[in-house]
Amino acid sequence: MDYSKFFCNALDRLHDERRYRVFADLERIAGRFPYATLHTPQGPRNVIIWCSNDYLGMGQHPKVVGAMVETATRVGTGAGGTRNIAGTHHPLVQLEQELADLHGKPAALVFTSGYVSNQTGISTLAKLIPDCLILSDALNHNSMIEGIRQSGCERVVFRHNDLAHLEELLRAAPPDRPKLIACESLYSMDGDVAPLSKICDLAERYGAMTYVDEVHAVGMYGPRGGGIAEREGVMHRIDVLEGTLAKAFGCLGGYIAARSEIIDAVRSYAPGFIFTTSLPPAICSAATAAIRHLKSSTWERERHQERAARTKASLIAAGLPVMVSSTHIVPVFVGDPERCKRASDMLLHDHNIYIQPINYPTVAKGMERLRITPSPYHDDALVDQLAEALLQVWERLGLPLQAKSMAAE
Amino acid sequence: MDYSKFFCNALDRLHDERRYRVFADLERIAGRFPYATLHTPQGPRNVIIWCSNDYLGMGQHPKVVGAMVETATRVGTGAGGTRNIAGTHHPLVQLEQELADLHGKPAALVFTSGYVSNQTGISTLAKLIPDCLILSDALNHNSMIEGIRQSGCERVVFRHNDLAHLEELLRAAPPDRPKLIACESLYSMDGDVAPLSKICDLAERYGAMTYVDEVHAVGMYGPRGGGIAEREGVMHRIDVLEGTLAKAFGCLGGYIAARSEIIDAVRSYAPGFIFTTSLPPAICSAATAAIRHLKSSTWERERHQERAARTKASLIAAGLPVMVSSTHIVPVFVGDPERCKRASDMLLHDHNIYIQPINYPTVAKGMERLRITPSPYHDDALVDQLAEALLQVWERLGLPLQAKSMAAE
Repeated sequence: MDYSKFFCNALDRLHDERRYRVFADLERIAGRFPYATLHTPQGPRNVIIWCSNDYLGMGQHPKVVGAMVETATRVGTGAGGTRNIAGTHHPLVQLEQELADLHGKPAALVFTSGYVSNQTGISTLAKLIPDCLILSDALNHNSMIEGIRQSGCERVVFRHNDLAHLEELLRAAPPDRPKLIACESLYSMDGDVAPLSKICDLAERYGAMTYVDEVHAVGMYGPRGGGIAEREGVMHRIDVLEGTLAKAFGCLGGYIAARSEIIDAVRSYAPGFIFTTSLPPAICSAATAAIRHLKSSTWERERHQERAARTKASLIAAGLPVMVSSTHIVPVFVGDPERCKRASDMLLHDHNIYIQPINYPTVAKGMERLRITPSPYHDDALVDQLAEALLQVWERLGLPLQAKSMAAE
Repeated sequence: MDYSKFFCNALDRLHDERRYRVFADLERIAGRFPYATLHTPQGPRNVIIWCSNDYLGMGQHPKVVGAMVETATRVGTGAGGTRNIAGTHHPLVQLEQELADLHGKPAALVFTSGYVSNQTGISTLAKLIPDCLILSDALNHNSMIEGIRQSGCERVVFRHNDLAHLEELLRAAPPDRPKLIACESLYSMDGDVAPLSKICDLAERYGAMTYVDEVHAVGMYGPRGGGIAEREGVMHRIDVLEGTLAKAFGCLGGYIAARSEIIDAVRSYAPGFIFTTSLPPAICSAATAAIRHLKSSTWERERHQERAARTKASLIAAGLPVMVSSTHIVPVFVGDPERCKRASDMLLHDHNIYIQPINYPTVAKGMERLRITPSPYHDDALVDQLAEALLQVWERLGLPLQAKSMAAE
C-alpha cells in the first residue's frame, strides 16, 4: 500500500490553501537581543526579531544565563527520570516553591511545557470532578481545548469575554452540578484581557471552579509579575492559575498553582505528568532566577509597556492598521494569507526584520495579521526602522493604509 | 460547592490502595554519578542512585555539559517561541539533522518530550491515514496509548510480542485497509525486546506501516547507538522510529525519524508540536553532543552491558529473584505494593541506596518490583554493596529468596 500518498496529499492541501509553513532558522545572540543570526542557504546574516515570546528578553539576562550555566556545571544536563523515578531534583522543588509564592497559593506543579500543563492538567482536574460541566471561552488556546476534549466532560463554549453569555450558560445548568470555567487572562493574538474580577463574581454566584491560563501575562503584569490576576487583585479568588516559564521567564516549561489537594491530585493522576521525564535542573534554576528577578525588578515591566505604547503610536502615526489592544501585543491587520506571507518575506529579505505571518489555524480565516511583540530592548531607532519598513511593504503590496487623522484616534 | 472533597477523595483512594507516591528530592553531582545528594527535612545526605534512566551517565559527560554551557552563554536560555514563531533555532536544526543521520532516515522532528512525540506523533499520523486500523502491543507505554486513543482510529491490541496473534489480527483485517503497527523495541519494565525483524516481515506481507518506540534503546544498542533496529539491521524497514533525548542521551526531548513526507506532515498538522515552545538551544546542543559522541564511542555501550551482566550475576548468586532479561534492565520481583515500598524505604534510609518502588499502574498489580538500572559508573564495590543491602532488606521483610543452585541456572 502506498502510504506516502496520504501524507503528500495532506501537504498538498496546505500548499493549495497557502498555509504551508516554512520555519526561519535563527540563532539569537545573548546580550544583543533582539538581534539574531538568520541561517540561510546563502549563508548567515543579521536580523532583528520582532515576534519573540521571550517578551522581556529574560532569556539573555545574566542572572538567568548564569543560573543555567552554574547548575549545568554542578549537576549535569538532564533530570534522568520521571518525577517519581529519580527525576525529582532540588532545583525543581525550589522552582515549585517559587511559583506557589508568586501566585499566593499553597502549592505549584511544573510540567514540561505550558501546552502539557493545560492538556493533562485540565483533563485530569475535570475527570476527578463527577459530571463536571466545563464552560470554555471561545478563543481558548489549542492546549486548553485539547485538555477539555480529553477530559471527556461535557463542554459549553461562551462567546469570547462575554459575561452575559457566560452567565446565561451558568444559569441554564443545574445549580448542584459541578462546573469549571476555563479561560485565559490575556489572549495572545489580539492582546485583549479577560474581565477576571467579573468572571470570579459569576463563578462564586453559580458555585463554579475557575481555571485561568496566564501564559501571556505572568512576569509582565502585577506588582511582582503574578499576572493579570495579581494586577486585578483576584489571584486568591481563582482556583487554578496556569502559567509558562517559556515566555516572559525566558526558559521552558509550564505549571499550575492552586490549593494543595488540587496540586496533589493532579500530581498523582495526570498521565502527561507521571509518565514523562522532568525538566532539567539547569532549566529550573534559570526559571527560578528569572521569576525572582521579576518579583522585585519593575524596570522590565515598565519599559516593556512603554516600548509597546511607543511602537503602537509610531505605527498608527504611519497609518498602519494596528489592531487596538491595551497590552504589549501589537497586531497589524492584513486579512489575507498570501499577502501576509509575502509581507513577512519582504520584511525579512529586504529589511532584515523577522515577523512571522499569523495565518489560519492560529487565527480565523480573513483575520491574518503580523503580530509584533516589542521588548524592553527594542529602542527608538528600531521602532522607527520598523514603521518605515512596514510602510514600504504595505505600499508595495497595495495593502490599505488608514487616513492619518483617523489613525490618531 | 465543596470541590476540595473530590480531590481529597481521589487522594484517599491512592492511600487506601497503597499507591500514593512520595518523590525523593535529589541533587546529582556532575562528575560523580551515580552519587547524589538527597534533600530531607533532616538535612542533606549522600546516596547512590540505582534507578536512573540516564542509563549511560551522559548527563554528566564533559562534552555534553560543555555544549550546554557554551550554547547557553552564547545564545541564552530559552527558544523564545513556537517552531513557527521565532522558535526554530540553529542548534535545533542541527539536532534534527544528527537524528536523521543516526537512524538512516531523510528527516527527523524534535518534540518537547518523548511522551509528546508519541502522543501527538501517533495521533497525527493515524488521523492522516483514512480508516487506519492501529495494531498495538499490549504493553505499549501510556504515551503511545494516549496517542492512539486521541487519533480516534480503531485499535486492536495484540498480546505482548506475540507474532502469531499479530498475524491473526492482520489477516482478519481487509487487505486494502491501511494499517499501522505500533510497538516498542525494548520494554522498560521487564527489559525484554520485540522481534522487530519478524514484525517487519508481517508488516510487509500485510501491507502495514510500522511505528517503533526506541526510547529505552537509542544510544545503547546498535554500532552507532541507533537502537535495537540498528542492531538487528532493520532500521530501513521501519517507517517511523521514535526516540528520546532524555535517557541515554542525558538531556530532554523526544523525536521521530522517517521519510520526508511523513515528517513534513506531522510538522504541519500535529497540535502538540505546532502550539508549544520549542526546546532551548542549550538542550539541543547538549543532545547533539551526546549523540555524536555515542555514534563513535563504544566504551559506554560495552561497559553498560558488562555492568548489567555483573549486577544480574551478583544478585542471582545472592538468591535474589531477578526477573530474567537480555538487556540492561534488572528487575527484582517483589509482588506486593506495601513491601515493595518498604523495601525501597529501607534501602534509602538504612543503606543510602535509592531505588524507587515500581507499583501499579506502572506495572500490573501483583507484579510490583524494584527496577535496577546499572550504569557504566556503578563499579564492583557498588554492585557488591547493593547485593548485600538487598539481601538484608529481603530477610527483614521476609521476602522469598531462591535456592542458590536454582538461581544460577
